[in-house]
Amino acid sequence: MAEITTKRIVLASRPQGRPTAENFRLETAPVAEPADGQVLLKLLYLSLDPYMRGRMSDAKSYAAPVAIGGVMEGGTVGEVIASKHQDFAVGDIVLSHSGWQTYALADGATLRKLDPQAAPVTTALGVLGMPGFTAYAGLLTIGQPKAGETVVVAAASGPVGSTVGQIARLKGARSVGIAGGADKCRALIEEFGFDVAIDHYRPDFAQALREACPSGIDVYFENVGGKVFEAVFPLLNQFARVPVCGLVAQYNSTGDFEGPDRLPLLMRDVLSKSLTIRGFIQRDFSEQRPAFYQEMVNWIAQDKVRYREDIVQGLEQAPEAFIGLLEGRNFGKLIVRLH
Amino acid sequence: MAEITTKRIVLASRPQGRPTAENFRLETAPVAEPADGQVLLKLLYLSLDPYMRGRMSDAKSYAAPVAIGGVMEGGTVGEVIASKHQDFAVGDIVLSHSGWQTYALADGATLRKLDPQAAPVTTALGVLGMPGFTAYAGLLTIGQPKAGETVVVAAASGPVGSTVGQIARLKGARSVGIAGGADKCRALIEEFGFDVAIDHYRPDFAQALREACPSGIDVYFENVGGKVFEAVFPLLNQFARVPVCGLVAQYNSTGDFEGPDRLPLLMRDVLSKSLTIRGFIQRDFSEQRPAFYQEMVNWIAQDKVRYREDIVQGLEQAPEAFIGLLEGRNFGKLIVRLH
Repeated sequence: MAEITTKRIVLASRPQGRPTAENFRLETAPVAEPADGQVLLKLLYLSLDPYMRGRMSDAKSYAAPVAIGGVMEGGTVGEVIASKHQDFAVGDIVLSHSGWQTYALADGATLRKLDPQAAPVTTALGVLGMPGFTAYAGLLTIGQPKAGETVVVAAASGPVGSTVGQIARLKGARSVGIAGGADKCRALIEEFGFDVAIDHYRPDFAQALREACPSGIDVYFENVGGKVFEAVFPLLNQFARVPVCGLVAQYNSTGDFEGPDRLPLLMRDVLSKSLTIRGFIQRDFSEQRPAFYQEMVNWIAQDKVRYREDIVQGLEQAPEAFIGLLEGRNFGKLIVRLH
Repeated sequence: MAEITTKRIVLASRPQGRPTAENFRLETAPVAEPADGQVLLKLLYLSLDPYMRGRMSDAKSYAAPVAIGGVMEGGTVGEVIASKHQDFAVGDIVLSHSGWQTYALADGATLRKLDPQAAPVTTALGVLGMPGFTAYAGLLTIGQPKAGETVVVAAASGPVGSTVGQIARLKGARSVGIAGGADKCRALIEEFGFDVAIDHYRPDFAQALREACPSGIDVYFENVGGKVFEAVFPLLNQFARVPVCGLVAQYNSTGDFEGPDRLPLLMRDVLSKSLTIRGFIQRDFSEQRPAFYQEMVNWIAQDKVRYREDIVQGLEQAPEAFIGLLEGRNFGKLIVRLH
C-alpha cells in the first residue's frame, strides 16, 4: 500500500478568552500501516462541538486537555481502508474518535460500525450520536418533564437543544426555545415544533421569556449560562430541575466575574424552591444508550424528531467553523466534510 | 371550665438583618373553649428552629410569612386539657404546630398523639421529629452516602447536623463535622462519633478542612452557606451531592452581596464535575416518614444515634434563645419549656 499522509490540525497554543485562528496549526504527517487489532481509516466527517473549547484549556475538568502540539480531539466518521482487526473489513463505515484529521489509525475495540442503510452516517455525530444522547439522557433522567410542564432550552437550534425541545413535546410538555436571530426562531417553530421561540438578541428578551412562560419554568436545560440563565432563574417553579449540559456563554471568559455575587441568591432559591441543579456529561448515563438508540431511530422514522445539519467543506475550515460555533453562527449540527 | 389565658409572642416588626428583641412582643389573650373537632392544649414545649427566620421575612419562600401581629410559628408538644374530638382525651400528649404560646386550640386532625413511654416527648421536636427527619431524608435521598465516601456537615452539633453525621457513619461513610468552638467539636467526636471535627472559628479553617478530607468530599450537607460553603466547594469530588437544607449564615443578610460573582464558577464546577445541588424541605419526602420513625427509634434504642437537647425555661426567653440560635450559641436541639 502506498504511504498515506494525513492532514491534521493541532493545538498551537491555549486561547486566552475567545479562540483565534492562531491557536490552531495545520500539519501533514505520515500514517503508519495498521498493527494487529488496528484499522486504517479514511476520515469522512468530523464533528465540531462546544465541549472542545474545554479541551483547549488546561483548567481542571472531567477530561484531560489536548496537549500543545497535539491533534484536536473530536468524533469522526470514517471508512476502513486497511484492516488488521477481524471485525472490520475494507469499506466498512465506522464511528471513531480520531480528531481533527483526514486519516488515522484506530484500535478496532474503540470503533462502532455504522449501517449506512439505516440512517445517513452523519447522524452518528448528531441526532443518533453524542448530541442526541446528551439531550435524551439529560432531559429524561434529570429534567423529567411531565405533561403540561414548561421546558425551556437555550441554544435551541443546535443539535442538543432542538432534540431537547422535541423530546419535551413528545412527553406532553410545552417547549420554549431560545435561539439567536429570526431565522433560527422561525425554524424552531416550523421545523422542530417548539411552542414558542424567543430571540435572545431582543432587547426585551427577559420580558419576552416571562411572557412565554406564564406558569413559570419547570425544566431549564442549561446549554449556555450567562444572560439566559439570569432571565430564566427568577421564573423557575417550585421543584424545578436544571440539567446543566453546557455553559457556552462563559467558555471564553477569563478570570473574575464582576459582582454583585449572585451565588447566595442562587442558593437561597435552591433552598426555598427545592430546586435541583445537576451537571452531567452523557457518558454518566451510558447504560441508557441502547434504549436511546432504539427510541430515537423510531422517532426519526415516524418524523417525530427532526434534525438539521450544517456541513462545511474541508479540514482547513474547521478552526473558523469552530470559532463560529462558540458564537452561535452555525445552524444545526456542525460537521466538517473531510474529503 | 375557668377561662384560660395564653401568653404568646407575636411578630412586632420584620427584622432588617439580625433579629432583635424589638421584633417580638409578648401578649396575653383569652383562649375560647374548643368547638366540635377541636381540643384545648396546654403547651409544654416549643421547638426553636432556624427556618423561623424565614417566616419573619416577607421575601418569597416556600411558606407564607408570619403576619405582623401574628403569633410566631413553631412546633409544640402539648397536653390535652379539654377535648371535643373523639380521638383525643384529657391527659393525652400531642405534637402540634401551635407556635410561640402557652395554650392553644387545635383541630384534632392536625395533631399526632405521642407515647411518653416510647420516648421522651421532647424528641418529637428533635431527633424523632422534624430535624431528625430532615437529616434522614435529605442525607439518604439526595446525599446517598456510600461506604468509604466522605460526608461533610456544618452546624454539626445541631439536631440536624449531628444526626446527619451519625447516619453517614451507619452507612459506612467517613463523617466530618464542622462546628463553632472546642466544646462542640469535642462532643462531635466523643458523643456523636464523628471521624473528624473542625472548629470553623480557626483562622486556618479552610486548610484544616482540606487536610481532613484527603480524598475530597462526596456529600456536603448544606446547613449554613457562607464561608463554610466556600471552603467545601473546591474539595467536592466528581459526582458529589449537595443536599441544601439551610443557609443560616445568610438568613440575616440584607441586600446585595459583594463581588466577584461566584455563580459562573459554581456552574462551571457543576458541569465539569457532574455535581448535584438540590434544595429540599423535609415535607418533600413525607412518604418516607413512617420508615424514618421506625428506623430512628431502633437506632436510638441501640445507641447508634444519640441526641442532645438544649432546654431553656419560659416563653419569655424564646426571642433571646432564638437570636442566639442563629448565631450558634446553643448546643443541641433548642427547646423552650413553657410551664
